[in-house]
Amino acid sequence: MDAPLLNTIQTPADLKRLSIDQLPQLAQEIRQTICDQVALTGGHLAPNLGVVELTIALHYVFDFGYDRLLFDVGHQCYPHKLLTGRLALLPKLRTREGMAGFPDPDESPYDLFAVGHAGTAISTAVGMARGDQLNNEADRKAVALVGDASIVNGVAFEGLNNAGTLDRQFLVVLNDNGMSISDPQGAMAAYFDRVRVSPTYGDFKKRAHKVLENIPGGSILEEIYHRGGEILKHAIATDHMFEHFGLVCVGPVDGHDLPTLIDMFNEVKDIDRPVLLHAKTIKGKGFGFSEDDATTFHSPKPFTVDGCRVEVASGGRSFTAAFADAMLALMAEDEKIYTVTAAMGPGTGVDKLIEQYPDRSRDTGICESLAMDMCAGLAKTGIKPFFAVYSTFSQRALDQAFQEVALQNLPVRVCMDRAGLVGGDGAVHHGFMDISIFRPLPGAVLMAACDEPTLKAALHFMRDYDTGASFLRYPRDSVAESPLQTDADCPPFKLGKANLVVAPNDKPDLVILAYGMPVYAAAEAIRKLYDESHDTPDTYDIALYDARFAKPVDIELLRRIIDADIPVLTIEDHTLAGGFGSAVLEACNEHGLPTHKIKRLGLPMKWIKQASRNAQLKEVGLDPDSIAETMKELIAAHPVNTHDHATARTQ
Amino acid sequence: MDAPLLNTIQTPADLKRLSIDQLPQLAQEIRQTICDQVALTGGHLAPNLGVVELTIALHYVFDFGYDRLLFDVGHQCYPHKLLTGRLALLPKLRTREGMAGFPDPDESPYDLFAVGHAGTAISTAVGMARGDQLNNEADRKAVALVGDASIVNGVAFEGLNNAGTLDRQFLVVLNDNGMSISDPQGAMAAYFDRVRVSPTYGDFKKRAHKVLENIPGGSILEEIYHRGGEILKHAIATDHMFEHFGLVCVGPVDGHDLPTLIDMFNEVKDIDRPVLLHAKTIKGKGFGFSEDDATTFHSPKPFTVDGCRVEVASGGRSFTAAFADAMLALMAEDEKIYTVTAAMGPGTGVDKLIEQYPDRSRDTGICESLAMDMCAGLAKTGIKPFFAVYSTFSQRALDQAFQEVALQNLPVRVCMDRAGLVGGDGAVHHGFMDISIFRPLPGAVLMAACDEPTLKAALHFMRDYDTGASFLRYPRDSVAESPLQTDADCPPFKLGKANLVVAPNDKPDLVILAYGMPVYAAAEAIRKLYDESHDTPDTYDIALYDARFAKPVDIELLRRIIDADIPVLTIEDHTLAGGFGSAVLEACNEHGLPTHKIKRLGLPMKWIKQASRNAQLKEVGLDPDSIAETMKELIAAHPVNTHDHATARTQ
Repeated sequence: MDAPLLNTIQTPADLKRLSIDQLPQLAQEIRQTICDQVALTGGHLAPNLGVVELTIALHYVFDFGYDRLLFDVGHQCYPHKLLTGRLALLPKLRTREGMAGFPDPDESPYDLFAVGHAGTAISTAVGMARGDQLNNEADRKAVALVGDASIVNGVAFEGLNNAGTLDRQFLVVLNDNGMSISDPQGAMAAYFDRVRVSPTYGDFKKRAHKVLENIPGGSILEEIYHRGGEILKHAIATDHMFEHFGLVCVGPVDGHDLPTLIDMFNEVKDIDRPVLLHAKTIKGKGFGFSEDDATTFHSPKPFTVDGCRVEVASGGRSFTAAFADAMLALMAEDEKIYTVTAAMGPGTGVDKLIEQYPDRSRDTGICESLAMDMCAGLAKTGIKPFFAVYSTFSQRALDQAFQEVALQNLPVRVCMDRAGLVGGDGAVHHGFMDISIFRPLPGAVLMAACDEPTLKAALHFMRDYDTGASFLRYPRDSVAESPLQTDADCPPFKLGKANLVVAPNDKPDLVILAYGMPVYAAAEAIRKLYDESHDTPDTYDIALYDARFAKPVDIELLRRIIDADIPVLTIEDHTLAGGFGSAVLEACNEHGLPTHKIKRLGLPMKWIKQASRNAQLKEVGLDPDSIAETMKELIAAHPVNTHDHATARTQ
Repeated sequence: MDAPLLNTIQTPADLKRLSIDQLPQLAQEIRQTICDQVALTGGHLAPNLGVVELTIALHYVFDFGYDRLLFDVGHQCYPHKLLTGRLALLPKLRTREGMAGFPDPDESPYDLFAVGHAGTAISTAVGMARGDQLNNEADRKAVALVGDASIVNGVAFEGLNNAGTLDRQFLVVLNDNGMSISDPQGAMAAYFDRVRVSPTYGDFKKRAHKVLENIPGGSILEEIYHRGGEILKHAIATDHMFEHFGLVCVGPVDGHDLPTLIDMFNEVKDIDRPVLLHAKTIKGKGFGFSEDDATTFHSPKPFTVDGCRVEVASGGRSFTAAFADAMLALMAEDEKIYTVTAAMGPGTGVDKLIEQYPDRSRDTGICESLAMDMCAGLAKTGIKPFFAVYSTFSQRALDQAFQEVALQNLPVRVCMDRAGLVGGDGAVHHGFMDISIFRPLPGAVLMAACDEPTLKAALHFMRDYDTGASFLRYPRDSVAESPLQTDADCPPFKLGKANLVVAPNDKPDLVILAYGMPVYAAAEAIRKLYDESHDTPDTYDIALYDARFAKPVDIELLRRIIDADIPVLTIEDHTLAGGFGSAVLEACNEHGLPTHKIKRLGLPMKWIKQASRNAQLKEVGLDPDSIAETMKELIAAHPVNTHDHATARTQ
């Protein structure tokens, strides 16, 4: 790519050597570089295009080798990464060797926190501001860059309210692009709309006198007004909602006007009180297709731009699409069903449901706690709520699942997409602990779907399960094109019952209990073993169960297997600490069944970095080859003696 | 007690038969009845005294047999309970046979949700409002009663923002008593202070003209103004911060003026849009001692009122007091230590630390997520943060513990008071799942303290543990007066190492691994067994370990025990699902150790209702007698054959 200015920048010091006149060209180079890359590999596009100028201006004015820059969500960090020495990592975006899609302290000291969940930057920055002060380094400026979609999150509010008590410099840059990841859902959006159409800097000079009139004499605002430069004077807002949180509010300013942004940052950076700078930006700025359809281009798969024609490459049929279609069918037949998402309309498929059933579905914005409680309220009135949420974000509604849902025995259905390893988004987005955190809740039922037929069957079960909460997990993956069982074959879900999907010919050498998607990896592993030993077809005889339930587990099945002295392999795309295999161990222990022939496969106790989902599965031993090896080891370690060919093999 | 009016009220219908003139007397009767009761048994006092008139007025105007009344937190529900047929249950307040201290749907259909954690009522009410609408019952009014301490919580903000999008009746009553459970910590408190000193209804008439001037022509507010009665006209606020959330804001009004409250509720109840009514109340209203020291009388132990002298009965030395003293000592020797609490200053002992070290400790208000993130920010700057939080409230910061703490490997120290069963507060406050939810976090260390010497040792360990998060749990209980080991004897904590506290004389028949406080119940159980068999002193030989760590568990110790074929009993005051015993099973399974001689004691998969902590422990089999029985059964089931006297006994 042709990026003569960007190519000269290894650190922000290089950026500071450019003249302000050169910066618009740099912005254009960054924009083109990011767009070219995302077109090749996929990644976050529109959020990054929106903050190019803001990022340049921040690095131009502040010194983030010393000062503190906190990103909220973090999917808008590409320009920041390109300005802090990571241009060379870009071509392998979101792979292990390349640039992570989110801030990553392992990549650069300019990334202070690895983040991906929204709403937390202000609270974290408040902590750093207080810490630097205690360390007698109060001159380290603190800046949090937050989008309008994030600021509606509860943690962001808590942070703003606390930031207002700071007695030192503290800057919140509100990047207001007028949309959540899809659309913002909440009354504040209307407030932002009103602010958004109010005059920006160009018109400020006209109203400077009016502003001064509205500032109460003797107030901090008046003091700051008189200490501020001309630009700040004209941009102070006296009627901004965040004023009530104790912040000096400035703007809105045009977030793509580099000279103004730089002047503005220069003027606010030395104000010794918390300031909120409201910047209006355009998500996807710079590319027509991206601006017009910022939702599609929020985080597209690879795409091609051919003149005006843009095509997003498509993969197989996703669990998300299967979920949306199954829910459309359920909602058609049951008018009591209501679906909720928390800003993940396209990601969970709920956008389709909102389109079809606008009165029976809702996007709460990035408010998972609200969404869970709203579902509890709906359930209390006899409505059947389904909350579609990423597994990783379900962590944000644990306390509501405890108090408003489980403690009331309310039938809220939680459908957790992206359960397990998620690929390029990396450690901040893996759904690795949903079983562990929801399993302690009395009355809760935990399920997993391994393919489209089981997904449908599970959703039917959940619709009818009305005595408590139910949780369903499924991965960020494609559903099997040729499922092990068709819709017609797939037996209905029965509470706590596993389902045999690969039957042995005889008494098995090994029984596999796979929870969710690993059913398919296990089936392939079995095929591999059978293929390997096709000259001696009876060498292995393996039964594979789709476990279906992690709570309650199928204790009758376990008893039959263990009483027959057959080894058991549990497989889950989830941490081993408190997960499905752990639930199996607990149940066996409680029922007096020995566990020494049980082996558990799952996620290890470490963070798995960005890579393809398949590479990650291989890394943790959950790919078919690794599973086949584990199966062989387990069979060798625990030969089933009463089994003729097994006995033969061990001699 | 002499309560002629209150005694006539079985349901709100009886209340409605009283004239408005009689209501102040009823309020006085309710107040006296509650105060007399709390003096006898303990319970929440000041919060309940503050909402007597609000509660009467709500029930007088609405019909909550049909309409929806949601309490936030719920510790202000006593007047509501007395008006809905539960006067007879009051004498056994907070016991199993008596009235629960929090709303409880099992007690009455007037209690819609069992709650105890703050900030959730608005979000839940929004769900009910939407559900009733779908059910074509939009005429069911929805009311959420929320305190100013709760409204700063993130979930409350999320709910307000969503409530603003409702196109129907919805009433938030903001009970503003000017204080959080202790003091509010956040800039909004200053905002409330300003609003609080602004005129109440008495002065409203004077400013009616001014209000109308400030309402933009053609707005919804103008329409409501003209449709409203005289009282509403004068009380509409045009500059309230929650207006930005799309709510019509009314007030502040005097929350103790019954006729005005009734008029006001009558006028707002038919407004077909969301309304926030801001009521000013006095926490502890009606009793001088309670108003003056509302923090002490928030939820006192039994106390006596003798003329002007009030004495709160004191129990033994609490873990909370021991924690505060240990932290005072640590903070004195290490100036990098910083302590944080989320509105639980007195409850966690952090109030003492704030008093002594105001610059190195902070109360965030009811903002657990903010508190966790603030700690992460502090840790990133090299400060050593300790977050003191109730175990049950730590659930509200799980996602922050995941993202900002564990994912960054930051040494944030989380000290969880009230871990395990909590007694009278009941199911909403048990700390029953902290191990399960934090154990999946890579790098996290989980510990428990069983007495004051181990609490101190654990805190020392945490101070020095700087490579990741550490979590410590201890119960709502008194520390042992005669600890098993003195400060001098108590060995320092060593990562993943259990500590032998009761040694056997010989090869033991049984090894107990107790996690935290159950160490003492187990020690007493052992004494009981030894006493029972004192004629044959060598019948039992039992080793008791204070397990200390749930993560990592002491696998070397487990190997030694299990290799010697000795049965193991794990004991924890925590759910068995994913808890300490589960961690033991997992570790043994991973290391190839059989588990059939391991028995786990802990909390069952059900909600444990209010009762004394000791009664609850007995209910779940964690009292010394039950533990002794389990020990005998386990020894009988798994005789240690190589042990002479054990062998003798089994013959």
